[in-house]
Amino acid sequence: MNPWRTAIATSDATHIWLRGYDVTQLMTRSSFTDTIFLLHRSRLPTAGERRLLDAILVGVADHGAGAPSCATARLAASGNRQSLSAAIAAGILAIGDEHAGAGSLSMEMIAAGVEVAKELSLSIGEAARHMLEDARAHKKRVPGLGHRVHTATDPRTAILFAMAREESIAGDGVAFMEALEQHAREIVKPLPINIDGALAGVLYDMKFPPEFGKLVFIIGRVAGLTAEVAEEYTREKAMRIKIPVTYDGIPPREVE
Amino acid sequence: MNPWRTAIATSDATHIWLRGYDVTQLMTRSSFTDTIFLLHRSRLPTAGERRLLDAILVGVADHGAGAPSCATARLAASGNRQSLSAAIAAGILAIGDEHAGAGSLSMEMIAAGVEVAKELSLSIGEAARHMLEDARAHKKRVPGLGHRVHTATDPRTAILFAMAREESIAGDGVAFMEALEQHAREIVKPLPINIDGALAGVLYDMKFPPEFGKLVFIIGRVAGLTAEVAEEYTREKAMRIKIPVTYDGIPPREVE
Amino acid sequence: MNPWRTAIATSDATHIWLRGYDVTQLMTRSSFTDTIFLLHRSRLPTAGERRLLDAILVGVADHGAGAPSCATARLAASGNRQSLSAAIAAGILAIGDEHAGAGSLSMEMIAAGVEVAKELSLSIGEAARHMLEDARAHKKRVPGLGHRVHTATDPRTAILFAMAREESIAGDGVAFMEALEQHAREIVKPLPINIDGALAGVLYDMKFPPEFGKLVFIIGRVAGLTAEVAEEYTREKAMRIKIPVTYDGIPPREVE
Amino acid sequence: MNPWRTAIATSDATHIWLRGYDVTQLMTRSSFTDTIFLLHRSRLPTAGERRLLDAILVGVADHGAGAPSCATARLAASGNRQSLSAAIAAGILAIGDEHAGAGSLSMEMIAAGVEVAKELSLSIGEAARHMLEDARAHKKRVPGLGHRVHTATDPRTAILFAMAREESIAGDGVAFMEALEQHAREIVKPLPINIDGALAGVLYDMKFPPEFGKLVFIIGRVAGLTAEVAEEYTREKAMRIKIPVTYDGIPPREVE
Repeated sequence: MNPWRTAIATSDATHIWLRGYDVTQLMTRSSFTDTIFLLHRSRLPTAGERRLLDAILVGVADHGAGAPSCATARLAASGNRQSLSAAIAAGILAIGDEHAGAGSLSMEMIAAGVEVAKELSLSIGEAARHMLEDARAHKKRVPGLGHRVHTATDPRTAILFAMAREESIAGDGVAFMEALEQHAREIVKPLPINIDGALAGVLYDMKFPPEFGKLVFIIGRVAGLTAEVAEEYTREKAMRIKIPVTYDGIPPREVE
Repeated sequence: MNPWRTAIATSDATHIWLRGYDVTQLMTRSSFTDTIFLLHRSRLPTAGERRLLDAILVGVADHGAGAPSCATARLAASGNRQSLSAAIAAGILAIGDEHAGAGSLSMEMIAAGVEVAKELSLSIGEAARHMLEDARAHKKRVPGLGHRVHTATDPRTAILFAMAREESIAGDGVAFMEALEQHAREIVKPLPINIDGALAGVLYDMKFPPEFGKLVFIIGRVAGLTAEVAEEYTREKAMRIKIPVTYDGIPPREVE
Repeated sequence: MNPWRTAIATSDATHIWLRGYDVTQLMTRSSFTDTIFLLHRSRLPTAGERRLLDAILVGVADHGAGAPSCATARLAASGNRQSLSAAIAAGILAIGDEHAGAGSLSMEMIAAGVEVAKELSLSIGEAARHMLEDARAHKKRVPGLGHRVHTATDPRTAILFAMAREESIAGDGVAFMEALEQHAREIVKPLPINIDGALAGVLYDMKFPPEFGKLVFIIGRVAGLTAEVAEEYTREKAMRIKIPVTYDGIPPREVE
Repeated sequence: MNPWRTAIATSDATHIWLRGYDVTQLMTRSSFTDTIFLLHRSRLPTAGERRLLDAILVGVADHGAGAPSCATARLAASGNRQSLSAAIAAGILAIGDEHAGAGSLSMEMIAAGVEVAKELSLSIGEAARHMLEDARAHKKRVPGLGHRVHTATDPRTAILFAMAREESIAGDGVAFMEALEQHAREIVKPLPINIDGALAGVLYDMKFPPEFGKLVFIIGRVAGLTAEVAEEYTREKAMRIKIPVTYDGIPPREVE
């Protein structure tokens, strides 16, 4: 077998190290959020970085039992009560570009916008306008704007951006998203920055790679999924969920 | 459709509430670990409870790329690079009673032991001995003792139990597990309390229900799984993993 | 690494063998159903066994988009359109003892009933009555009887049992399930043999182990799940599914 | 809730219909493979179509316990023995563009090639050459050619193509893949048509949409996955799998 290798964690009979730190030191001196940062970045966060990452994880932890991830987990638990893991895994499988994955797409757009700003000697605001018009010309959806529940404003966005400014973390990422929202209001229609767009701006400024936009949502949402599945197991009967469906296919016919 | 109901989270156009708290307040005033506690317990933790829960989550976050959960996630990522969620979900599916799920089983055993202590007017130590001898008589495995890597001692156990004592959280749960380890050494062989047994003792004393022993492992391990999958995507080629297998079945034969 | 071994399949640069048969011979001379039988039983089926296994797989292939497995797969596809595998896997995760897994439980009950018949020198009918009364005394649910949609009769049961008789396959398994239904009608209330109970009787008589009762459902249902997910992808928009949920938890409160 | 609708299956208290056919008729008059075809195409197959679909499903059913899908399922079963579904779902999650998903990509390339042939008035062979040179110019991998085990020839390809000719099903799809292989040999190096490329040619000629290239693999492989997981449960101990991993990250350091 070709060798497996990793730079993340290792252990021997008496120790476990995460990115070089003894896990027993981390258990006494760092929070779970510190360790999440460490596992992905190979260093512990500053106080400001920890505060932002905590706020993002709390912000995506749960959004109600009807969100696709939570509803999928509950449906799986309705038919299969032998494995908590199975229900939680099912919930995670509902997380993709369309549900919560827009954070990664937004981070890619910000990176592309910053590149355009450099190449064409534009301000970040002008680059955001450029990207928006480009998306409109190609009839592509702009990630990070608009929300099916929070139609006027996503309450989590202002909190995150204010905190990023307080901690002197806000930079091109936050500026790009704010310019994008403003241009959209002027050119298209009011489309508030949603949580995906907000965390994308902040994580870009914290120098995370784009895929972390999706991964951070998964880490945070598992907190909610475990609570939703625990509630389903203890409060509801198995097989309680009945989805009414209309059949509009071929009418009854005979096999010849 | 029969109505869905939940006591965990809800939202309207301008707000999201988790267990009654506005998520924007939680984002500024609580850590992710606080919110995990809140979602499962309907109240925020004390400083001591937060410290213990942080230590547990950090303690289980990762154990190397060869642990079943991490290896399963990497194998899935080796064949399917269209969905980060798919690889992380696969890793979670490897978590059961045999891998990391012993925390729940240990919490059930502690609860049964405390019950026996009450019924038979035994000390916790005597009840632990009773449970151990009962398991031996029925040739059942005792959960929470022994580890395939940490054969002499699991470094995380002493840290957790010391912290539980410092925070005045240690009670019957910790006492039961320590008595169990001591009796096992005397009657059977040295079998150190592993991380599952250690977190079970502490979580029992924090009044979590047994299923949380498995759920806390899933929440913590997702931190490691996301880092493992990100490393697999960026550092390794797809389809790199080849598992050598010996075939010992029916030799070649003809379809008649 | 400890060696992996298997008696199922192997390959070299020019050949693939399944249970000793060259896959190219199987591709020309056997049906998919033959190969399913072969993989699980190490031999090809008789014509009667193939007919029964085909009927079972067809009987469980789909039951409408609202069945837990299909609805779970569609919900996952609603949020994640990057991976067909992710949606199908989510659907499979909804299959457990409560949804479709009763086939395995029924096969275990039949085996226990046949054992009781031998030990106590009872007829199969008397053993079925014994098992039913035992379940009632212990307030346990009897698997294989009753269906939330097919309340009076499950149309698939009579077909399977008639076919099992035609092919001289019906034995203790079919007899046990029929006796169980009859005693339930007399002692409890009319509870028709559902598809799980029906396939359990037939598979027991075909000498499959109990776990195959769940596995056969998974194999058959994947046919439906793939069609359901394909329809969801091509006919519906992402994020179309909104589940209305009532919140009945703690009212809004302030973080102190 | 917005209404759910489907054209696949429906049921009432006494009947189940699949694409308009009563399931009890299908159970007696059609094979499982017929029903798979029906669910995806809304009609039953001809004898030739059934023969080809059977051959494809048998051809992909299993390839040994070391294939990513099978190894992933076994690893999941090693840690979690509470749910057969969980292990099988994990195996499916390893199926993506890189493992077995090339069938869909090949079908898309064939469709693009046929389009190019029409537009530029080329023969199918010339269009295949055009597509190959285009892929080389853009340094893109050509799906459907080459196999890590079957380096000289994939034994399943000749069988499928011969059968497609016998049944008068072979058309542009088969011709395109054969021309692609020939041009690759002349221009690049010998790269045999693998099973993904072979089933893509045949399924294109049977007028299936591209996504069925991946779905058919999932349907067929579940036959093998169920057998692999059943063998793992009955023959191997839990937690038997140990993957050796080399750590090459940051050396031990102190938390400051």
